Amino acid sequence: MNNLKLISEYQSFGGKLGFYSHPSSTCNGEMRFAVYQPPQAAEKPLPVLYFLSGLTCTEENFMAKAGAQRYAAEYGLILVAPDTSPRNTGIAGEDDEWDFGTGAGFYVDATEKPWRSHYQMYSYIVQELPALIAANFPIQPEKQGIFGHSMGGHGALVCALRNPHIFKSVSAFAPIVAPIGCPWGQKAFSRYLGNNQASWLAYDASELVKQLGYHSQILIDQGTSDKFLTEQLLTDVFAQACKAVNQPLNLRYQAGYDHSYYFIASFIADHLRHHAISLEKL
Amino acid sequence: MNNLKLISEYQSFGGKLGFYSHPSSTCNGEMRFAVYQPPQAAEKPLPVLYFLSGLTCTEENFMAKAGAQRYAAEYGLILVAPDTSPRNTGIAGEDDEWDFGTGAGFYVDATEKPWRSHYQMYSYIVQELPALIAANFPIQPEKQGIFGHSMGGHGALVCALRNPHIFKSVSAFAPIVAPIGCPWGQKAFSRYLGNNQASWLAYDASELVKQLGYHSQILIDQGTSDKFLTEQLLTDVFAQACKAVNQPLNLRYQAGYDHSYYFIASFIADHLRHHAISLEKL
Repeated sequence: MNNLKLISEYQSFGGKLGFYSHPSSTCNGEMRFAVYQPPQAAEKPLPVLYFLSGLTCTEENFMAKAGAQRYAAEYGLILVAPDTSPRNTGIAGEDDEWDFGTGAGFYVDATEKPWRSHYQMYSYIVQELPALIAANFPIQPEKQGIFGHSMGGHGALVCALRNPHIFKSVSAFAPIVAPIGCPWGQKAFSRYLGNNQASWLAYDASELVKQLGYHSQILIDQGTSDKFLTEQLLTDVFAQACKAVNQPLNLRYQAGYDHSYYFIASFIADHLRHHAISLEKL
Repeated sequence: MNNLKLISEYQSFGGKLGFYSHPSSTCNGEMRFAVYQPPQAAEKPLPVLYFLSGLTCTEENFMAKAGAQRYAAEYGLILVAPDTSPRNTGIAGEDDEWDFGTGAGFYVDATEKPWRSHYQMYSYIVQELPALIAANFPIQPEKQGIFGHSMGGHGALVCALRNPHIFKSVSAFAPIVAPIGCPWGQKAFSRYLGNNQASWLAYDASELVKQLGYHSQILIDQGTSDKFLTEQLLTDVFAQACKAVNQPLNLRYQAGYDHSYYFIASFIADHLRHHAISLEKL
């Protein structure tokens, strides 16, 4: 494998889960990700599903807590979970805040100093990572889907809306759907992208869906007891945007659920099924 | 709820997962545990299944990583996961070692100073905790099962073998089955129980099964790539002991699996099904 380093490997649901690092040209340093290969991967190329995690997460949280491997093994999907940001870049203050810098790359290509020298997560997710996966794992490059949680739900929606030819299916758990209108997004975008808010629009799912639409139904699960719902996630802004352009959206408000992985695990089966159907595995 | 303090609560697979603390008379201090109540618990009393975790774990690991809630909700089982030891006891050096003291109670009643004033995990698991659960949750006290992982697999086997009237079913993932013959067990038992090795026999599953047997089949899953298999777990000692007394044992060596929660999650469905059948839910 070209420049890929296997850090650890686990047998899981008859397949194998590996944690890898590699030198990223896009992010100008070492990046990490996890790949789950179901049993079917030993025999033939399979569709691949990318999961983008939320604030503070690494490439591990999803694989350890979401319970997705069971369904990936059932449907024959390869799962890829990248880290949420570059790390150890040497940028002063990168570790100082939980919602900015390390663990909080927000899946944008930073244009502002000092972040722009490493924080190129958008290009990493839509270009470098898929190429690396295609070169090293038995995937079907024409069958790729993407989903995510919170900040990663934002990332998944943005990456899919802007690249429908790459990502043939998309879903999200409790996504930040209107970052230009919420404190997390405004903080991150002003420092990664600068104060010209015109540049922010390319990373706002609610703006993008109105401009671009998406070729198939979008699935979103959102807990009603999620403490971030009204201030940060702004789910209804995206629902209204989809409605305005007749974008098919399956938005499910799940009564009593919060923002945690216990929420994700409860509905992960439905998301893998959504992608399996879209990627023609069902 | 008498003296129970709810620390946090999460909706999960249609039921609720709560983390609790309470003043334990047995352990002479605060103890913590987690309880998952499936949706059916809102309507009627249900069987209860205790999971004992391994070295370094708390009451959280199993609930976050094993993926058991899905099957508990399917079968109608309440899950209880206690912490693995007392904490913050004030005993000098309690936090110094990962395989002794905090996080490593080994499910014994310590007889040696200074541990005996708090480390009474055996009595806590077989007496105080079940009474507390019965008083505060909608359980069927005549339908209780127990299982665990590694040190907790040892604990589950010992608790069930010595109390078959309380625990009507038992299973384990990668259990320490012959602690008197392995370094982890010898270290813990010598310091909790003293150097009279006769007192150790009451906490050795391989000895107990020969003396006491068990009223129903025991299920054990063991990964063949588990790095602790040959030095610490000694699975074959238990298999031989069961064979010697014709104890029904379903020991499954799982090729390529290690000692992690990725192993547990891969086979958790079979374990919940084993208990559901024994506890007459299937």
